[in-house]
Amino acid sequence: MGGHSDHDWLSAAAALGERGRPFSRPNPAVGAIIVRDGRVVGRGFTQIGGRPHAEAMALAQAGEAARGATLYVTLEPCAHQSERGPSCSSLVIASGLARVVVGCPDPDPRTAGIGMESLRAAGIQVDPTPSHAAQHSLAGYLTRARLGRPHVTLKLATSLDGCIALADGSSRWITGEASRAHVHVERARAEAILVGGGTLRADSPRLDVRLPGLEARSPERWVLTHAPAPEGWRAIADITAPDAFGDLQYLYVEGGAGAAATFLAADMVDRLMIYRAPIVIGGGKPCIADIGLATLDAAHGRWSHVSRGQLGSDTLDVYERRR
Amino acid sequence: MGGHSDHDWLSAAAALGERGRPFSRPNPAVGAIIVRDGRVVGRGFTQIGGRPHAEAMALAQAGEAARGATLYVTLEPCAHQSERGPSCSSLVIASGLARVVVGCPDPDPRTAGIGMESLRAAGIQVDPTPSHAAQHSLAGYLTRARLGRPHVTLKLATSLDGCIALADGSSRWITGEASRAHVHVERARAEAILVGGGTLRADSPRLDVRLPGLEARSPERWVLTHAPAPEGWRAIADITAPDAFGDLQYLYVEGGAGAAATFLAADMVDRLMIYRAPIVIGGGKPCIADIGLATLDAAHGRWSHVSRGQLGSDTLDVYERRR
Repeated sequence: MGGHSDHDWLSAAAALGERGRPFSRPNPAVGAIIVRDGRVVGRGFTQIGGRPHAEAMALAQAGEAARGATLYVTLEPCAHQSERGPSCSSLVIASGLARVVVGCPDPDPRTAGIGMESLRAAGIQVDPTPSHAAQHSLAGYLTRARLGRPHVTLKLATSLDGCIALADGSSRWITGEASRAHVHVERARAEAILVGGGTLRADSPRLDVRLPGLEARSPERWVLTHAPAPEGWRAIADITAPDAFGDLQYLYVEGGAGAAATFLAADMVDRLMIYRAPIVIGGGKPCIADIGLATLDAAHGRWSHVSRGQLGSDTLDVYERRR
Repeated sequence: MGGHSDHDWLSAAAALGERGRPFSRPNPAVGAIIVRDGRVVGRGFTQIGGRPHAEAMALAQAGEAARGATLYVTLEPCAHQSERGPSCSSLVIASGLARVVVGCPDPDPRTAGIGMESLRAAGIQVDPTPSHAAQHSLAGYLTRARLGRPHVTLKLATSLDGCIALADGSSRWITGEASRAHVHVERARAEAILVGGGTLRADSPRLDVRLPGLEARSPERWVLTHAPAPEGWRAIADITAPDAFGDLQYLYVEGGAGAAATFLAADMVDRLMIYRAPIVIGGGKPCIADIGLATLDAAHGRWSHVSRGQLGSDTLDVYERRR
């Protein structure tokens, strides 16, 4: 297959699937690639609002070329017909595809295992091939299915000593332009952004995406507070309440220290992104308030360091919660 | 020259010079390599207590092979005869060396420029070749000459949110074994270690080098306090007093937050080594107390990020003060 492994194709499908983020809601942001004789003959990803599905888009693109080809898809094709269209399994069966490589089983009980079984029953070779890239690209959907809440990213922008402001509250600016632009990209990848009530009152942050061409991708704005929300904001008082976040798949928490602590104390942070500027503040405002940690032992073993990078003179370190 | 540039040889000489650290006091830890027809014929570094000098050791090793060869030396050869032996310049002249490549001029007024001039007057080709590696290997000596105090490294070992302990003071352990072993290596490279009075009272740290074969390299122990020093410790009350640190070249400050702030507020930190464990504490003890910073603008532009590494699951970031 032109030197590419099944894993390579699944990784490519995952990258394609990420294009659907964050607009595939309520559906997962799936990616699909159809390969015939080493050549790509169809590509698809979940469209805005969840339809068409990735497989339907890729099959429509491939047309007759799908016959005898292989489909690489990040998530098990759905088995349930909806009023919005036929199931992907039935489309795949009708297409004449010879083989389907699946990066991740679908946890949705209407599809789980059934999607792959129905393909096999139709004589199609099905190869479940667990792919980290595929799972990573579906983090929002999988977190919803497993934990009943959105995937939560906590952003911290601090000095080297972990402060987010001087003692008097001054916080403009700690990190540099490149970091702040990176934050705007991350905002564009979330369906909603949340800040604490104190941060909203103190900073009146706009929390929009101020990058050329991405202005329309500014997400919903949520505030953690018992008070009524201001115009243009949604208020949430208890993040652990059932369905507190509706069908959100990706939530981006921007602080302050209280909101960060609330999410960490509830063990509701999946990804930690720490931007650090090469400055020392000393005696400033700490980035995370009390989380009720009883012993140091209890703090260990929870976070994996997954990447580090340089943004101008700042660094960015990303950690993921081990579960 | 076997494909090696002058800079390569100076870097090799710098690495050799570092072997003299921290026992060359009161002399600089110089490194010297003699190369003839692309082959090394002599190597030397400042010996314990400062004598023999690097050049004398390398010349003794080279013997007659020095004739017509090139000497790579991190620091300008000394021009002043002392009661402890002849000047290196006179030894170089007597050796028959054809060329001397110097990584850094000597700021000592008894030698500054005079060393190189006397070699030239004797018909030797002298090439001053500013070398970052050479300067870096002489940081303690150069800091003494320029600022009248030792080169100061501040170590911080923190959680991701910049804490050095829980609110109740528990601090064992934040960083892992690999980081703690690395700290012991850094201790062995310092002449003295300093902690704050509070840390000494709270933790009774041993501050020795507990690495096989390096136990004898445990440095002097200093405590920042107005109180009398306990047995085996030296007390210092004012770090900015003239000659507060005698002829120390390398001081390693291990905390706590108050001592760190005292050195930072006095702009007496040259190197910042931050070990970070992948844990979140939240509401713990911050790593640096108030340093009197008035505005965020004043905090920027002071630190350069020079290296980052992985130590087990911890990270190590090193910053140097821009001067």
